[in-house]
Amino acid sequence: MHRGVAVATWKFGQAAVAASGAALSDGGSAMDAVEAGIRVAELDASEHSVGYGGLPNEDGVVQMDAAVMDGATLDVGAVASLEGVRAPISVARRVMTDSRHVFLVGEGAGRFARKHGFGVEETLTDEARRKWQEWRGSPNRNGDGHDTIGLLSLDADGNLAAGCSTSGVGFKEVGRVGDSPLIGSGLYADNEGGAAAATGLGEEILKFCMSFQVVEFMRAGLPPTEACRAAASRMLARRPETAEHMAAVVALDPQGRAGGYATRDGFSYAVWRDGEATYTEVTVVRA
Amino acid sequence: MHRGVAVATWKFGQAAVAASGAALSDGGSAMDAVEAGIRVAELDASEHSVGYGGLPNEDGVVQMDAAVMDGATLDVGAVASLEGVRAPISVARRVMTDSRHVFLVGEGAGRFARKHGFGVEETLTDEARRKWQEWRGSPNRNGDGHDTIGLLSLDADGNLAAGCSTSGVGFKEVGRVGDSPLIGSGLYADNEGGAAAATGLGEEILKFCMSFQVVEFMRAGLPPTEACRAAASRMLARRPETAEHMAAVVALDPQGRAGGYATRDGFSYAVWRDGEATYTEVTVVRA
Repeated sequence: MHRGVAVATWKFGQAAVAASGAALSDGGSAMDAVEAGIRVAELDASEHSVGYGGLPNEDGVVQMDAAVMDGATLDVGAVASLEGVRAPISVARRVMTDSRHVFLVGEGAGRFARKHGFGVEETLTDEARRKWQEWRGSPNRNGDGHDTIGLLSLDADGNLAAGCSTSGVGFKEVGRVGDSPLIGSGLYADNEGGAAAATGLGEEILKFCMSFQVVEFMRAGLPPTEACRAAASRMLARRPETAEHMAAVVALDPQGRAGGYATRDGFSYAVWRDGEATYTEVTVVRA
Repeated sequence: MHRGVAVATWKFGQAAVAASGAALSDGGSAMDAVEAGIRVAELDASEHSVGYGGLPNEDGVVQMDAAVMDGATLDVGAVASLEGVRAPISVARRVMTDSRHVFLVGEGAGRFARKHGFGVEETLTDEARRKWQEWRGSPNRNGDGHDTIGLLSLDADGNLAAGCSTSGVGFKEVGRVGDSPLIGSGLYADNEGGAAAATGLGEEILKFCMSFQVVEFMRAGLPPTEACRAAASRMLARRPETAEHMAAVVALDPQGRAGGYATRDGFSYAVWRDGEATYTEVTVVRA
């Protein structure tokens, strides 16, 4: 019997899947593994695109987006534009279990968090503030960075789960939401098809419901990497301008096979499997 | 040459598609028709689930969600938890054309609206306030109503567009967002597949990316009604508890064929086609 699998986007995914693997080895569920892994990336202040230490919006305020999905039941929980919480993935999970709704945004998401015991935390680090001040003073004020953590897990009971967390494009407009907290775009999980999570320019990813699309391709019989490649290829064919941006997706099927692909080079993801962590660089698709 | 087609959910869809048809007859685009039709439902104060006159959240504040999608380009614009605007569909369209992002929520959505010339309007009617006061005083404080307007259009150039607008479940938690402003869940449009829009309990619809699913089924060759039926059937099979709730979807294919289906009886939609408006009642699927 396997002890489970965890897959996560980007280099910070290595520490994340290690934490997920520890949770799985302790008998945790796929959802426990998703939360444990993503929290590691969120609480790492040196990462400027996720959780604590993330770059703020144009006003200098960190607004975070996160979501989880349970592949056994299709239950979901999501928050967007949440302020004052360093690890928003735990609020998203709490929305799933404790709200009559599934997606809370802005002030309402913060109010839900306080009501359920999450204290008000400082989320802006000195380094992120300094970067924001530099941005304010620069002539070219474009946004910066979009390295969402997406994490997928399969547990020993054969259940899949997916999660996503980001502080969003650095210096974004107030209230901007990308694909990360959107079910089907930033993440999707269904025990009967597979799980997927996306990262990159959310404004493009959400036009294609990229994670749902990958799960649909796996449901139709494609292995994970081929499912990711097919989704990236469709995006490039339908909107060739996406080749200028990073749009990447990872997938995990109900048999525990993992894969990933991207619209351009430079993407990487990490896999934990029965105690063995691996790190994969994925290169460009030109389909 | 046809002058276009418009399809909209529910009984208020009749007045909406009439306005869409007028826009199409004047040479307007599918997107013009979507905006014109949805504005009619939004500005009708007697409708308690959309725009002005919509039921407020638990705090007595009206928070609205809306989105548009252009099937030619896949461009999208969306707002959620927007306050102080009676016709949020026009703000969603403005996000599509004038923001570097595509989805703005909460305070940020309001700030974008003011910056682009939308004044602060009173959105709570006396009748909606009275219903909220009754709800506050009642022992059984469940939410009420979820009759989103979803509107699809095909113009004389063969372009598809989709739009969605709602004030959400009455007396919802502050910041609650359902499927309506979520691309792929509440709406989807792609000239190469078709267009779809969903209405009903958003918390269930978004678990299935229902609108994207319907477009995928049309892309694979199903006619609109069969595509909607297949999506409703999958939902009922995967989560049988959805039979207790209304989840309905309408579809329009690139050839101008329209259809709709629902998880239970009582759903209706309206179609405008070359000057002829029709009204269709759709009954329950038991697949």
